Amino acid sequence: PRHQGMAKNTNLRWRLPLVCLLWQVAMIVLFGVFVRFGAEADAHWEEEKREMNLTSDIENDFYFRYPSFQDVHVMIFVGFGFLMTFLKRYGFGAVGFNFLLAAFGIQWALLMQGWFHSFKDGKILIGVENLINADFCVGSVCIAFGAILGKTSPIQLLVMTLFQVTLFSVNEYILLNLLHVKDAGGSMTIHTFGAYFGLTVTRVLYRPNLEQSKDKQGSVYHSDLFAMIGTLYLWMYWPSFNSAISDHGDAQHRSAINTYCSLAACVLTTMAFSSMLQKKGKLDMVHIQNATLAGGVAVGTSAEMMLTPYGSLIVGAISGVVSTVGYVYFTPFLESRLHIQDTCGIHNLHAMPGLIGGIVGAITAAAATEDVYGKEGFIKAFDFTGVYQTRTPSIQGGFQAAGIVVSLLMAFVGGAIVGGILKLPIWGDAAAENCFED
Amino acid sequence: PRHQGMAKNTNLRWRLPLVCLLWQVAMIVLFGVFVRFGAEADAHWEEEKREMNLTSDIENDFYFRYPSFQDVHVMIFVGFGFLMTFLKRYGFGAVGFNFLLAAFGIQWALLMQGWFHSFKDGKILIGVENLINADFCVGSVCIAFGAILGKTSPIQLLVMTLFQVTLFSVNEYILLNLLHVKDAGGSMTIHTFGAYFGLTVTRVLYRPNLEQSKDKQGSVYHSDLFAMIGTLYLWMYWPSFNSAISDHGDAQHRSAINTYCSLAACVLTTMAFSSMLQKKGKLDMVHIQNATLAGGVAVGTSAEMMLTPYGSLIVGAISGVVSTVGYVYFTPFLESRLHIQDTCGIHNLHAMPGLIGGIVGAITAAAATEDVYGKEGFIKAFDFTGVYQTRTPSIQGGFQAAGIVVSLLMAFVGGAIVGGILKLPIWGDAAAENCFED
Amino acid sequence: PRHQGMAKNTNLRWRLPLVCLLWQVAMIVLFGVFVRFGAEADAHWEEEKREMNLTSDIENDFYFRYPSFQDVHVMIFVGFGFLMTFLKRYGFGAVGFNFLLAAFGIQWALLMQGWFHSFKDGKILIGVENLINADFCVGSVCIAFGAILGKTSPIQLLVMTLFQVTLFSVNEYILLNLLHVKDAGGSMTIHTFGAYFGLTVTRVLYRPNLEQSKDKQGSVYHSDLFAMIGTLYLWMYWPSFNSAISDHGDAQHRSAINTYCSLAACVLTTMAFSSMLQKKGKLDMVHIQNATLAGGVAVGTSAEMMLTPYGSLIVGAISGVVSTVGYVYFTPFLESRLHIQDTCGIHNLHAMPGLIGGIVGAITAAAATEDVYGKEGFIKAFDFTGVYQTRTPSIQGGFQAAGIVVSLLMAFVGGAIVGGILKLPIWGDAAAENCFED
Repeated sequence: PRHQGMAKNTNLRWRLPLVCLLWQVAMIVLFGVFVRFGAEADAHWEEEKREMNLTSDIENDFYFRYPSFQDVHVMIFVGFGFLMTFLKRYGFGAVGFNFLLAAFGIQWALLMQGWFHSFKDGKILIGVENLINADFCVGSVCIAFGAILGKTSPIQLLVMTLFQVTLFSVNEYILLNLLHVKDAGGSMTIHTFGAYFGLTVTRVLYRPNLEQSKDKQGSVYHSDLFAMIGTLYLWMYWPSFNSAISDHGDAQHRSAINTYCSLAACVLTTMAFSSMLQKKGKLDMVHIQNATLAGGVAVGTSAEMMLTPYGSLIVGAISGVVSTVGYVYFTPFLESRLHIQDTCGIHNLHAMPGLIGGIVGAITAAAATEDVYGKEGFIKAFDFTGVYQTRTPSIQGGFQAAGIVVSLLMAFVGGAIVGGILKLPIWGDAAAENCFED
Repeated sequence: PRHQGMAKNTNLRWRLPLVCLLWQVAMIVLFGVFVRFGAEADAHWEEEKREMNLTSDIENDFYFRYPSFQDVHVMIFVGFGFLMTFLKRYGFGAVGFNFLLAAFGIQWALLMQGWFHSFKDGKILIGVENLINADFCVGSVCIAFGAILGKTSPIQLLVMTLFQVTLFSVNEYILLNLLHVKDAGGSMTIHTFGAYFGLTVTRVLYRPNLEQSKDKQGSVYHSDLFAMIGTLYLWMYWPSFNSAISDHGDAQHRSAINTYCSLAACVLTTMAFSSMLQKKGKLDMVHIQNATLAGGVAVGTSAEMMLTPYGSLIVGAISGVVSTVGYVYFTPFLESRLHIQDTCGIHNLHAMPGLIGGIVGAITAAAATEDVYGKEGFIKAFDFTGVYQTRTPSIQGGFQAAGIVVSLLMAFVGGAIVGGILKLPIWGDAAAENCFED
Repeated sequence: PRHQGMAKNTNLRWRLPLVCLLWQVAMIVLFGVFVRFGAEADAHWEEEKREMNLTSDIENDFYFRYPSFQDVHVMIFVGFGFLMTFLKRYGFGAVGFNFLLAAFGIQWALLMQGWFHSFKDGKILIGVENLINADFCVGSVCIAFGAILGKTSPIQLLVMTLFQVTLFSVNEYILLNLLHVKDAGGSMTIHTFGAYFGLTVTRVLYRPNLEQSKDKQGSVYHSDLFAMIGTLYLWMYWPSFNSAISDHGDAQHRSAINTYCSLAACVLTTMAFSSMLQKKGKLDMVHIQNATLAGGVAVGTSAEMMLTPYGSLIVGAISGVVSTVGYVYFTPFLESRLHIQDTCGIHNLHAMPGLIGGIVGAITAAAATEDVYGKEGFIKAFDFTGVYQTRTPSIQGGFQAAGIVVSLLMAFVGGAIVGGILKLPIWGDAAAENCFED
């Protein structure tokens, strides 16, 4: 098997470059054909300003969203990258492959999401909001990567990225455009979809003999501190994540406050349950690194709604409990009974809190009233205009719930197919004894 | 003693969860009763905009302060958290407990500060400025944590947080509202108060037998690099800290510039004195990690005033000298003579530079003239309106000085009482031989 | 030689403090004479607003540029600082000396650039744009530091900083003011100049016996992860770097998008060539840490122009290839044949991509048409007003190309002179056996 492993690595020498270069050439061609600057990034902006009757450059969307974009960018590359460095001998793999798949994925996401949402006269017109959405889309791939961390070759990761970005965009289109669902922080589109997709893929790729490398799946002192860098950046910037593409003004402001509150509460219940469920009452670093973030996931859909600060505290508190309990009881169960090997525990951090987020969003939408939102605010918050003019809050709640179901279906079916594709023997699969090692 | 230590840890298993959960439930209830979105985060914003005659969403306070808020947020969680990771076997404790107490404290701070400053018709109305102020308040607890790092149980930390946030809010109310003092960067309210509070607490908790664990109080190579992450983030984002809640426009702009200048000068004098006071002329990592930041503390009060760039250089240069000399001479003196065990040296980084900051603020305010500020700028900078219409610069300087005295008194009296409470045998006190160890 | 080394260190005890303190006093005096707040940071801002007919504080340049400034600030101190921590025994030196020289350099840069660009009625009037430019200027010193990392004393670094900041400012003045060249992201002024300056200096300081310390020039596991922190922050924030001082509105927006695209493509081609050129097909951490950033350097001049997203992908893809090939083939060649010891490989990351950036900028400028930019946009983008009213795109392209040549000449001549000065035996030169060691 050692020889076989090396043979595979040797093949990698040609296959990875080939995939990367072919892909990059394809991207250049497609960008050349389709992608142009949107009106706010184009040199014709002066004329645009006049037409739109804007008096100042500060009205450019860049100034509304660029700080949030940068925070999201840090979450994707440093946040997810370092969160996964906890494995004692796979730190480079975690950060490096996360870097590779994200850089690969954002280009494809700009195209896929562009065709669905920013297509005009045969061109995709991009601006800062497209960059944020591309980062979001790739975020769902980073989540799925957490389930298969250390067990796949970089080529398998790239193939998964290609398909997952495609499916993400289709699912997002169904939710946002066909179902007219609100999901600014992506509880459904990013977390529920990404996590169940990744869990399905890792189930299909099940390796019974991974038990032997249990020791490599542990952490060491400094690898845990590196992982805390990832955790803290995700935790601190999550208010930017959930507010990045909300409507200008009160919606962005509100999303940030709700997320801030939810995350604070989540830390306390995570610490409480982590201490309670451990034999010696010591806090478990795995819980602190992961479950403290569940509060951000769980208000992803509802943060821009009038969830209220105390509503956010409740959601955050519950999600911290669910996530921590998940690490202690569900993860071992998933592995032993369902043969789902979930390296980073994304079921606890993204899947369950994502479902909570979808449900909380449906309830918050269904409970909306003109009294709470104001007449104009109500219409603006749910975009009840045009053909949706007559939609009521309870119907909106129903559609929100439908969005959860669609995301789950897309994740299971898509994950099964993509998992099957990844099993094909042409992608330079990693030998079992090389898993979790750089 | 080993048995006793374990017994204490076992108790922790129930006490920590209980404290966290009870606290979180209390927060949810109090937020439910009191906390609502302020006008700029509420869905009624469209109506508000019309009433306030605002033409654009960009006028929402979110866009004036959110980037600064995120920088402050990073300072509290990554900055203070990683600054304290230098202990070779207490990295998790530093980052993890800092995370716990900050998440715990910001909720209570939103309420306490809200009752004092944002209370209207029975409700606390919050926006991004409240989030910044809550982070600031918790910052003073992180400072005090630096003095007792490694010597207290998490429950003791939470109890201290509860009381310190309360006292901070009272002190802040006295300074800002009753004395009408300016202190945007918190030299007095955050640093002087936080540091002397923490020093008093650690004095009360004095443990003579800690000498034995001197070896654990050292650092190792990589723990020092982790600490540098904390240092640099504090250093880089300090201009945001001091400008985060200044008035819109020139005041925010000026605060950032003054702080930038002060910090640059502080690095040079710190390096100079660090090299001069070491036997072999080598730079001491402890000084580089801490004293380089004194310049940010020392312009906390005056940064938004017309301190001028060269004034900032002078203040920064002096504070670097004072802080470095403090590490070399004062810290050993405080420990051996006054029995104050100051793990992180907060006396040098926060207490003395905080005092300098208060004094510089008083002088800068007393020296203000209509000529330098302009007629309107003068009134706006010191808010000399309403009942304060007739206050002169020299009177303002006197009140600023009074603010220092009040902060010191609150810190000493409050610290003594809270230290006494923490000595009660019910909080799962850490055994001496477990100190400085995860 | 050991004795000699210690003697030198002992001298350092007095020389470093002396240099730092004298310098700081000089800065205070010069700032006192020359530096004042610009109109947007001065307390007279209310009057200024009225005069400029501005209706809102949000029009203050602070809100256009401060978020970008903070990102640039992180790049200089954490980005460059941690990128250089890869050496296994020189982590403190990398971060610490980078910190020292940058804090030292920004003060001098504020003065030098101020005299050239912000001088009015005998005073230098500063605002947030000056802070960004000072960071930029120091960035070029950080780049040059990469070539001599581990081989020079801190005093030599400070002397180099003093001269390099001066030369940078002169070169920048020639390019921006005399040649009227566009270079917002500094491909020419920052990267080409900084890198060739540093390479010339390291050539002059050539030490034949450094071969013996080859083992210290390697990395260890965790030092490579620290370096990845530097890499990722540079990579993520590069869109802010290239857009920080572009014109308000579309130009800032466009710069960020172009840089984002270029960097994404660069990651893929870097990974491809890194894998292809390694014997076992494994990715080389040195390439991932450095060559992935070449895409940001290579669009530094053209990012604010209508380079278009696909143009950016092409530039990024090419620069990744060039940079990676450089690490594999050019660096060994430079060392063995030309006696240029380039510790961090700045020739591959900054010099060659900087040249590419200058050339791409010249071509993009020469290819500009009123059709693509719009009539107003065309004039605004290249500032074809006043005496430059009649300049055509092709002439502008010629001047852009001239800017590359001037930058190279300044770097070679300046680097040779400064290298000669650094060879003088008065700066506490490090003994060869102490190189690459803290």
